[in-house]
Amino acid sequence: SRKGVPEVIYAPGKNLEVIFRSMEELLSHSGRVIVSRPSPEIRGEIIARYNPRYHVIGNWSVAVEDPNIPLPVLDATVGIITAGSSDWPIAEEAQLVVRHMGCKIIEARDVGVAGIHRLFPPLREMLGQGVDVIIVVAGMDGALPSVVSGLVDVPVVGIPTSTGYGAGGQGWGALLSMLQTCAPGLSVVNIDNGIGGGAVAGMIARQVSKARRANSSNGK
Amino acid sequence: SRKGVPEVIYAPGKNLEVIFRSMEELLSHSGRVIVSRPSPEIRGEIIARYNPRYHVIGNWSVAVEDPNIPLPVLDATVGIITAGSSDWPIAEEAQLVVRHMGCKIIEARDVGVAGIHRLFPPLREMLGQGVDVIIVVAGMDGALPSVVSGLVDVPVVGIPTSTGYGAGGQGWGALLSMLQTCAPGLSVVNIDNGIGGGAVAGMIARQVSKARRANSSNGK
Amino acid sequence: SRKGVPEVIYAPGKNLEVIFRSMEELLSHSGRVIVSRPSPEIRGEIIARYNPRYHVIGNWSVAVEDPNIPLPVLDATVGIITAGSSDWPIAEEAQLVVRHMGCKIIEARDVGVAGIHRLFPPLREMLGQGVDVIIVVAGMDGALPSVVSGLVDVPVVGIPTSTGYGAGGQGWGALLSMLQTCAPGLSVVNIDNGIGGGAVAGMIARQVSKARRANSSNGK
Amino acid sequence: SRKGVPEVIYAPGKNLEVIFRSMEELLSHSGRVIVSRPSPEIRGEIIARYNPRYHVIGNWSVAVEDPNIPLPVLDATVGIITAGSSDWPIAEEAQLVVRHMGCKIIEARDVGVAGIHRLFPPLREMLGQGVDVIIVVAGMDGALPSVVSGLVDVPVVGIPTSTGYGAGGQGWGALLSMLQTCAPGLSVVNIDNGIGGGAVAGMIARQVSKARRANSSNGK
Amino acid sequence: SRKGVPEVIYAPGKNLEVIFRSMEELLSHSGRVIVSRPSPEIRGEIIARYNPRYHVIGNWSVAVEDPNIPLPVLDATVGIITAGSSDWPIAEEAQLVVRHMGCKIIEARDVGVAGIHRLFPPLREMLGQGVDVIIVVAGMDGALPSVVSGLVDVPVVGIPTSTGYGAGGQGWGALLSMLQTCAPGLSVVNIDNGIGGGAVAGMIARQVSKARRANSSNGK
Amino acid sequence: SRKGVPEVIYAPGKNLEVIFRSMEELLSHSGRVIVSRPSPEIRGEIIARYNPRYHVIGNWSVAVEDPNIPLPVLDATVGIITAGSSDWPIAEEAQLVVRHMGCKIIEARDVGVAGIHRLFPPLREMLGQGVDVIIVVAGMDGALPSVVSGLVDVPVVGIPTSTGYGAGGQGWGALLSMLQTCAPGLSVVNIDNGIGGGAVAGMIARQVSKARRANSSNGK
Amino acid sequence: SRKGVPEVIYAPGKNLEVIFRSMEELLSHSGRVIVSRPSPEIRGEIIARYNPRYHVIGNWSVAVEDPNIPLPVLDATVGIITAGSSDWPIAEEAQLVVRHMGCKIIEARDVGVAGIHRLFPPLREMLGQGVDVIIVVAGMDGALPSVVSGLVDVPVVGIPTSTGYGAGGQGWGALLSMLQTCAPGLSVVNIDNGIGGGAVAGMIARQVSKARRANSSNGK
Amino acid sequence: SRKGVPEVIYAPGKNLEVIFRSMEELLSHSGRVIVSRPSPEIRGEIIARYNPRYHVIGNWSVAVEDPNIPLPVLDATVGIITAGSSDWPIAEEAQLVVRHMGCKIIEARDVGVAGIHRLFPPLREMLGQGVDVIIVVAGMDGALPSVVSGLVDVPVVGIPTSTGYGAGGQGWGALLSMLQTCAPGLSVVNIDNGIGGGAVAGMIARQVSKARRANSSNGK
Ligand SMILES: Nc1ncnc2c1ncn2[C@@H]1O[C@H](COP(=O)(O)O)[C@@H](O)[C@H]1O
Ligand SMILES: Nc1ncnc2c1ncn2[C@@H]1O[C@H](COP(=O)(O)O)[C@@H](O)[C@H]1O
Ligand SMILES: Nc1ncnc2c1ncn2[C@@H]1O[C@H](COP(=O)(O)O)[C@@H](O)[C@H]1O
Ligand SMILES: Nc1ncnc2c1ncn2[C@@H]1O[C@H](COP(=O)(O)O)[C@@H](O)[C@H]1O
Ligand SMILES: [Mg+2]
Ligand SMILES: [Mg+2]
Ligand SMILES: [Mg+2]
Ligand SMILES: [Mg+2]
Ligand SMILES: [Mg+2]
Ligand SMILES: [Mg+2]
Ligand SMILES: [Mg+2]
Ligand SMILES: [Mg+2]
Repeated sequence: SRKGVPEVIYAPGKNLEVIFRSMEELLSHSGRVIVSRPSPEIRGEIIARYNPRYHVIGNWSVAVEDPNIPLPVLDATVGIITAGSSDWPIAEEAQLVVRHMGCKIIEARDVGVAGIHRLFPPLREMLGQGVDVIIVVAGMDGALPSVVSGLVDVPVVGIPTSTGYGAGGQGWGALLSMLQTCAPGLSVVNIDNGIGGGAVAGMIARQVSKARRANSSNGK
Repeated sequence: SRKGVPEVIYAPGKNLEVIFRSMEELLSHSGRVIVSRPSPEIRGEIIARYNPRYHVIGNWSVAVEDPNIPLPVLDATVGIITAGSSDWPIAEEAQLVVRHMGCKIIEARDVGVAGIHRLFPPLREMLGQGVDVIIVVAGMDGALPSVVSGLVDVPVVGIPTSTGYGAGGQGWGALLSMLQTCAPGLSVVNIDNGIGGGAVAGMIARQVSKARRANSSNGK
Repeated sequence: SRKGVPEVIYAPGKNLEVIFRSMEELLSHSGRVIVSRPSPEIRGEIIARYNPRYHVIGNWSVAVEDPNIPLPVLDATVGIITAGSSDWPIAEEAQLVVRHMGCKIIEARDVGVAGIHRLFPPLREMLGQGVDVIIVVAGMDGALPSVVSGLVDVPVVGIPTSTGYGAGGQGWGALLSMLQTCAPGLSVVNIDNGIGGGAVAGMIARQVSKARRANSSNGK
Repeated sequence: SRKGVPEVIYAPGKNLEVIFRSMEELLSHSGRVIVSRPSPEIRGEIIARYNPRYHVIGNWSVAVEDPNIPLPVLDATVGIITAGSSDWPIAEEAQLVVRHMGCKIIEARDVGVAGIHRLFPPLREMLGQGVDVIIVVAGMDGALPSVVSGLVDVPVVGIPTSTGYGAGGQGWGALLSMLQTCAPGLSVVNIDNGIGGGAVAGMIARQVSKARRANSSNGK
Repeated sequence: SRKGVPEVIYAPGKNLEVIFRSMEELLSHSGRVIVSRPSPEIRGEIIARYNPRYHVIGNWSVAVEDPNIPLPVLDATVGIITAGSSDWPIAEEAQLVVRHMGCKIIEARDVGVAGIHRLFPPLREMLGQGVDVIIVVAGMDGALPSVVSGLVDVPVVGIPTSTGYGAGGQGWGALLSMLQTCAPGLSVVNIDNGIGGGAVAGMIARQVSKARRANSSNGK
Repeated sequence: SRKGVPEVIYAPGKNLEVIFRSMEELLSHSGRVIVSRPSPEIRGEIIARYNPRYHVIGNWSVAVEDPNIPLPVLDATVGIITAGSSDWPIAEEAQLVVRHMGCKIIEARDVGVAGIHRLFPPLREMLGQGVDVIIVVAGMDGALPSVVSGLVDVPVVGIPTSTGYGAGGQGWGALLSMLQTCAPGLSVVNIDNGIGGGAVAGMIARQVSKARRANSSNGK
Repeated sequence: SRKGVPEVIYAPGKNLEVIFRSMEELLSHSGRVIVSRPSPEIRGEIIARYNPRYHVIGNWSVAVEDPNIPLPVLDATVGIITAGSSDWPIAEEAQLVVRHMGCKIIEARDVGVAGIHRLFPPLREMLGQGVDVIIVVAGMDGALPSVVSGLVDVPVVGIPTSTGYGAGGQGWGALLSMLQTCAPGLSVVNIDNGIGGGAVAGMIARQVSKARRANSSNGK
Repeated sequence: SRKGVPEVIYAPGKNLEVIFRSMEELLSHSGRVIVSRPSPEIRGEIIARYNPRYHVIGNWSVAVEDPNIPLPVLDATVGIITAGSSDWPIAEEAQLVVRHMGCKIIEARDVGVAGIHRLFPPLREMLGQGVDVIIVVAGMDGALPSVVSGLVDVPVVGIPTSTGYGAGGQGWGALLSMLQTCAPGLSVVNIDNGIGGGAVAGMIARQVSKARRANSSNGK
């Protein structure tokens, strides 16, 4: 699709017929499609229909990929960090998007601020591997993206998640804390918008990759 | 006063006459008084009137202490950590309250999450000195109290401050992030309520001190 | 676990398999575990599996305790006061946490401000028994923690609950009223956060107990 | 005026000329007028103009009364209770309104929930004198009206005030706590609406007085 | 019960066993009880159990009345006005409460401001019959209580209802419009709090009735 | 300007130099300009500069009109109704806009719902004169536009104003009540947006006028 | 019905019996009726009952039209633009209302701002056909009505829809963006209020049509 | 400074002495400093002190640059688009930050959605010059970033500004509309946070520049 951002079908409120029709159209067009937030039933139906003819992946969302059409390949790396296990479904949305855009991906899971020491080794690893942009997915206190942004020298994209109840629940505490960050270099997308966060990181990666390649070819 | 919590005069909306009258009454009663959030003018008038007859301290609030009446002494220590320089005036409110309650105090300033590495040495110092309760004062993202509470094994009192503008400004991002903390052991008081946060920490210290002394006298 | 705060499994959104796997791990590690907010079905399955091999308690949450591993014992007492019957499930979360931390517990139920006279006898009893910290659980108007904090000389932890509908419902009226308390010495945790409120009280009790014991051993 | 509710001039945003013109018209019509929330300057000008020709009262608002035109007299009593000293200006609005409606008035000041024991004697006094309706003016936690409503058997009118800063400040904590009251018999008016709260209590008193007199004349 | 306000069982979240136990206790005590907001199933079970041994009424709530124990009788009249048909269930809560308190009741239904001309005849009728207090139940724009309060000379109790979706939905538009009323004499209870609004009106009626009777007996 | 909507200079935050430069440009272009919300000083300076060379009108905003360039004339009529005197400045904005668009204007002032009987005569007058669209400007309870829309058969444009304090103050109660209207045919613009409300009514009038003229010329 | 606005039955919360009773009454009266937001079951039942005796249309709402009673015919045209496919159900409400009012209708679907170039051709078409008023239905960012209003010279009615989750979800982002429009000539109705938006456009069309006809008959 | 993001002094609440001290330190360290949101007085003092010894620029913020220390130079381009003139001060903050980070800058001013046609030429220009990331600064409806993001294939950073009053004012409408964008590739920073938005764009540019250079040197 335009901008290299994969078309994603947002499943809630759509019935199977509508979803299959859209999937067919997008598969025939680009050879891959992501369905975000399917119910378990819809997810089951999609897997039943496309697996194993297609490469079908994802534990919450579903990505369906035509094995005969290779994914694009970007010369850029995206880091994805999650604070807790309830942030995985949203992180997966972002991961599938950057995957379909062709990024290399490095992940670090469950490194929330309640045990901040767990964060340092994987972060060092990411920086060592030359990560170009880092997505940080965090709910509740939403503190992790600020901590990460204070520690790295690449752009950070914060994705607040709707975990948490009571005051500041449903992602509000996390979103507002991220908007109030005192660590410059952090921008955010909406609560639970893993797709959007992935697209932002993917677009940055694409721009970096273009720069890397343009010059490496220039150099020849 | 009752509970050992010092009486504090909240200056906004009160004229000098009312403030002086209250101060006189409280000074004659307990030999000390705190005036919180005086305007610079009111602060100047208080200093002019009581200094140097009395011990007058505080850079934003003013505490006035009769040099002939010793402060109480608790056998307990309160740590006070601030995230940034705009949090000092509120931290000072808490500091004056725990001082008047007789606590030992250890401070660490400007150790916000934008440079989390600055936090570790003073925190280790506090724990080494056997701190009994830690007050963390932070505005904007309000991430610091969660990080601290995840690192220590004593109760933490979060005081959100009203620094920050836009969405989550006026302390809302900080308060909600603290309420959403994923690090158990953190409780909060209202935005900018340094007096209240100091009182909570002081009450904890008082209970610890009573326990320490009761038994040390028992032991004799 | 770290800080003596028991590990708690938050059940909503987790399936039985995930919950059992976590429970096994925690039981094998510390001999006890709390599952908060299980559905009645999940609760039934947990009881069916562990009762009577283990000590299984709780009317809303479930605590499972290995009879061969004694609970820790702290030399400190926590009071728990509830305003109305709809506050019990949240108070139970706090109670199970402080129980697993080893605190002595004194309870007073249904002493809300609509009949304030019912509050005085149990409060006198608590103070007589030397309570070190009081948890007050209240929804709707959230007035009770302020009233209690005005009457006692120990720290008070307010837990607002989500009872109540309309404006200020879902715990907002209670939370905001507690944050606005005019009785210093009250701090709060988030709406319905019985686990967090219990952890704060338990941490205070642990610090008091350490002080009590350190000195009583010193005294010997 | 209609309903026996005195006409009140809301001063903010009006200049002296407009205020004087309205005052003249209302004085010539009913012999009395209340100006609510005048600035100190406007208040000074009103006093300078009408005192001592007229009876001029009020420490925040100003009531001007023609000494030749007697106030109405109702055979009913209104109680007015304030939680703290910052609630007096709003309580005064209510007091001036019920005064102009002809009610007997009993007052109790500074009996907030932070020291609930201070409440009982004046409340017993009010009930002993046969109060017909009680106005309770409280800011911050707004707990007092619920406590009072739980203790008396007459209608209670809650007036939340805008004292308090941070979350729940500007009267929101107080208003929401009152709306969430668990003590039936309490209704509320808007934050700082002393005029409105006085009018409600005055209308109740008027209806009671009519009933009392209608029958006492019937009885003749 | 105390204050003459009937005890009401709030059904949501309670099971049949708990409800029946409470009902038995209250019926044995006062001979009547109201159950508010029962599910249709619970409502059916209550009717099946008590009808026709008891007098069972109500289309949404259920009131159960022992035919051998007469209702109290007050010498005072309450008017109840509803704006639209979706306001009836809440109005019924208020009606059952004032009925159990012994008030005379006059009703006017579906006279919302979208056709304001329908309001005048029933209002004239109410005033003609000497109504002592008027309850106005309205959702959505919440305009009706202000219009009514501007037309009558008795106290008006506004009950906002949660009809309405979108911005200002769930009763917020109605509540805020009522709190902002420009017609003095209107006080409010919380959104959908028919029980509370009935209690306020009933308490006013009780005070009026006492006045009426005290004097009529005095007069003899 | 495009759409026939006059260009308006929003004065807050602009200095006199910027305002005069814009005014000159717009006057030279169309011969008229409106400056909305000037401070009294800026308003004075504008009058001093343009009066009497130009036709300068408005009591809060300022409209400056070149006497040599006739205003457009539409064959359509706009009604403007205000609820209270604090709504006049906003109503004036709307009035100046529709005036500059060439509409006939009928006004009715101070006919708020607290005395609904005052509304009927001027409304009958408007309808009798064939008004094409009615602007209703109201703050506080915002009830008036719903009442008017329920009584007329032309489109109604509601302009909520920021009069009112406390909950629902700053125009929120009025806006939400209007959005929740149960009288179809009412649309709204933002709080205090007299310019926008005037533009909507003027655009409707322009469309009606075009229709009226197109056909009357067709008819010839 | 009055104002030519069709009576609409709001289905949520009503059972089939109540709905059929209302439908019968309205059909016998005017020969047509719209049922908005029926559940699929209720929708099915309505179709089963009235089709094919009546003309039954609508994919989300249901309109039932007596084939023997012609719809009114207005000499005016309403444009309806939707941003995305999730806006169709709300746009349909508006479409059925203006259809029943007799307007000519031109539609443009799925021309949201994410691909703004798709907007221009249908908009040019609408303007070419002399559209008198345009309804723009948009959720999420709510940007489309502002863009359209900036491009046309007829009144625009914005209908925000509740598509969208997280911050600004449920239509709040769309509503607030529309209220903040910088393109004069746009007014709004509440979130998801397709009925209300249709009524506003229909009333404008009716006024235009009257003008068009009055003069064309005058002209004869 | 770390990350290449220039240190910025946030002036509000700081006095001249504190500001000058910070400026000296930062100037001696890196040869440049930005002071954001100085009052006109403070701005004047800074200019008086540093001009012309230093290069002093900025119309709202002030950047002071040592002429002997060259700015860094990145091989990457940032576009900056503003919707209206009230967005300039915030856009300037971003511009000064990306300038100090060494980016090439292309600007387009006053191309808001109320006249969307003005947007296309400068946008085509930017894309033609190979812009790597675009900052879009917009207040009120906040529609522009969504429109831009739908038209370009580079990452877009939205900066909502606090222009606008009433509902959605102070930047809320703009922020929420941007968070709800239906054009993937857009991320946001907080309201009025030009500094933060500049830092995000600058970090992206830095990463792109590194890629461009790394390879061009590799190629050699
Ligand atoms: N800045 C503050 N924040 C919260 N409470 C305060 C503050 N300053 C004083 N207080 C408390 O407010 C009460 C005094 O209120 P007042 O009688 O109005 O001076 C005392 O109980 C103080 O402890
Ligand atoms: N719908 C209702 N709204 C407000 N209060 C209610 C409602 N129903 C019952 N109550 C009150 O709630 C209390 C009973 O609560 P519970 O003990 O939970 O049944 C009584 O004081 C009732 O007057
Ligand atoms: N979806 C809707 N949104 C707003 N108003 C509606 C809707 N559906 C019906 N109405 C209006 O609600 C009123 C009918 O309400 P009811 O008597 O409850 O069916 C009529 O005036 C309708 O015009
Ligand atoms: N207008 C602004 N908005 C957001 N952050 C800012 C602003 N101005 C300065 N900063 C950041 O705030 C920090 C400096 O804060 P301070 O030490 O209070 O001057 C630096 O990290 C700056 O990047
Ligand atoms: Mg986190
Ligand atoms: Mg911080
Ligand atoms: Mg309570
Ligand atoms: Mg109080
Ligand atoms: Mg109504
Ligand atoms: Mg009004
Ligand atoms: Mg849109
Ligand atoms: Mg814009």
